[in-house]
Amino acid sequence: MNESFLTFDDSELQHRLLRVRLAMKSHGAEGVLVGTNANKLYLTGRIFAGYIYVGADNTMAFLLQRPTALHGPGVHTIRKVEDIPSVLAHAGITVGLNTALEMEDSYAAVCRMANALHISPGSNASLIMGDARMIKTDMEVAETQICGKKQTYVYGLIPQLYTSGMTDVELQIEIERRMRLEGGTGMLRLSGNSMEINTGSVLTGANADHPSPYDFALGGAGINPTLPIGANGTLIKPGLPVMVDMNGCFDAYQTDMTRVYSVGKISDEGQRAHNVSIAICHKLAQAAIPGRSCAELYDIAAEMATQNGLAEYFMGHRSHASFVGHGVGITVNERPVLYARSKDVLQKNMIIAIEPKFVIPGIGAVGIENTYVITDNGAVSLTNAPEQITELIV
Amino acid sequence: MNESFLTFDDSELQHRLLRVRLAMKSHGAEGVLVGTNANKLYLTGRIFAGYIYVGADNTMAFLLQRPTALHGPGVHTIRKVEDIPSVLAHAGITVGLNTALEMEDSYAAVCRMANALHISPGSNASLIMGDARMIKTDMEVAETQICGKKQTYVYGLIPQLYTSGMTDVELQIEIERRMRLEGGTGMLRLSGNSMEINTGSVLTGANADHPSPYDFALGGAGINPTLPIGANGTLIKPGLPVMVDMNGCFDAYQTDMTRVYSVGKISDEGQRAHNVSIAICHKLAQAAIPGRSCAELYDIAAEMATQNGLAEYFMGHRSHASFVGHGVGITVNERPVLYARSKDVLQKNMIIAIEPKFVIPGIGAVGIENTYVITDNGAVSLTNAPEQITELIV
Repeated sequence: MNESFLTFDDSELQHRLLRVRLAMKSHGAEGVLVGTNANKLYLTGRIFAGYIYVGADNTMAFLLQRPTALHGPGVHTIRKVEDIPSVLAHAGITVGLNTALEMEDSYAAVCRMANALHISPGSNASLIMGDARMIKTDMEVAETQICGKKQTYVYGLIPQLYTSGMTDVELQIEIERRMRLEGGTGMLRLSGNSMEINTGSVLTGANADHPSPYDFALGGAGINPTLPIGANGTLIKPGLPVMVDMNGCFDAYQTDMTRVYSVGKISDEGQRAHNVSIAICHKLAQAAIPGRSCAELYDIAAEMATQNGLAEYFMGHRSHASFVGHGVGITVNERPVLYARSKDVLQKNMIIAIEPKFVIPGIGAVGIENTYVITDNGAVSLTNAPEQITELIV
Repeated sequence: MNESFLTFDDSELQHRLLRVRLAMKSHGAEGVLVGTNANKLYLTGRIFAGYIYVGADNTMAFLLQRPTALHGPGVHTIRKVEDIPSVLAHAGITVGLNTALEMEDSYAAVCRMANALHISPGSNASLIMGDARMIKTDMEVAETQICGKKQTYVYGLIPQLYTSGMTDVELQIEIERRMRLEGGTGMLRLSGNSMEINTGSVLTGANADHPSPYDFALGGAGINPTLPIGANGTLIKPGLPVMVDMNGCFDAYQTDMTRVYSVGKISDEGQRAHNVSIAICHKLAQAAIPGRSCAELYDIAAEMATQNGLAEYFMGHRSHASFVGHGVGITVNERPVLYARSKDVLQKNMIIAIEPKFVIPGIGAVGIENTYVITDNGAVSLTNAPEQITELIV
């Protein structure tokens, strides 16, 4: 019944540890101790109860909190957080005073951890791990590519999932079902304590212009005020765009793709704005080479929207998102973020979603979103459903 | 376009504020400032960007972080956390030094809030709000009852959702779809940073005995190690139990119900254990009157399992959950928890799920779970699907 603790081989682990240690160095940390699910997934490929310690000095330990049949080098068992120092000491690991803890974990958890280690919370392991995760290893890129292919496959089925008289919610439910049948987990991992969504959003009609309290690109009222995002039960009407932004969560790595569907043609104005979105994506993909600043990419997008007389509708209408793209990985909203004041600079193997969208009153939401990997020659899309508006089959 | 900020009337708000202020008093706090979604939902019925301040002195303020068309008494607008003191001061509210902050919110968020308010984190608003939310208002009970009816309705459809040759995952997908078509949000709200699940669990075969890293009653490998809980693709075989624990998340208030299905009859041993689970539920429901300790309820359940020779299989086999029930409300895993060392005592209008389950090698998982409201005459079930094992229609 024994199973290897790591879901990938040691060389992949070493790649990821190298990235974590590089980030530690720039933050001046002697070690990181992480316990949140996304960061554990990054360093092991699995969710488990426990913690991971990574020292700047090439030490590391997987600290498992439950009896388990998992095994492998560096695997230790603890009963509670307070056991960590002695278990690490027994393994010859000294926890330095400047060990970084995850400031995105709960206050209670961080304080308990700091007390257990006899340190004061100093460096932020959430930032360190965010830095590390921002640039993907080749294996992470390959896994994201697989996700993109699955998501693209399901998007290809959408025209057949529609039946006449459906609401946005009903169409979304059929897409969710297909995602699940293709291996989707039915759960989407997000960064940020206050972010919530089911597995995506379908927007049509005036609902596309409904502001949301969450930091997603677009809003939607949701089916009730307890989850105010996305589809709200609007009937899908001929001639109006149906924007589908349903996430591909098949494994650790996600892709983010948006496409627009419609019953019959949408208005020329809507079609024109959709074409501008495609043009922005292509322009940004070309411009997105290592060394380019994220702020610059945002500026290019905003400028193209303005030049086309669409500034008022860019990234929302009643309320506007301030970004045009974001990193994607273990969570669907990672760094870097493409916004005007970003200090991040693109690097090879970053994976970013670019989503220049327009919300036009009387029409709805148009535009596309792709997930791209940054290469020396620009951004290469991992989400390759046709970008033009696809007609729903009646 | 204006919409009232509160989704319930002022008298309901006053009930809930009374509960919060009672809890504040017992924690010695002068006020609470909350920003996590579940607590905002409790005090307004909706999710919004911003915070809520509740003072012990009958002051309160809704601090909305985005321009919004929502309106109502006590609604103020802030741009950022740091604006809170001046906005409150302007409303005549002085923030006391012993204002409680949510220790279950992120370390970064709590520190930023404490700095903004010029206070040190002291009392724990997560505990205070947990105390308040533990006993439901009559309206909360009524909303939970509605959820229970919807969940019960969907469970009634399960025999028809099964088709021969299905795996656990495939059956779960069809149940998810029906839940969504009946108004399910497709997202389940949980307490605890490390808890994750899609919208429930279907367990059959040996997978029922697979330990999970999460603190759910039972485990399951999940479809991959990135979400190790529940169904894993096991073929549903005649004569083996299929345990369905799919949550009802239709609105703010959830119910938790587990039922067992099978193709043909399961073994006598499995059937007997299932009957013991039903008997434990009935016994506990009878015993669950105000004043009864949660520890005592756990002891009764464990004792009945032992008397029936099922201790080895009680709440798992390869790994055992240490509780037999838990509070249910805005999150599916609230207080009180029914475990041996609980200090909580039942009170009228608590809502608790009781789930005495058995995992028997070679058979799988059997047992039921109901969500009950505590009344003076014992616990009344809000989840009323037939408790006996239901045959799946082939």
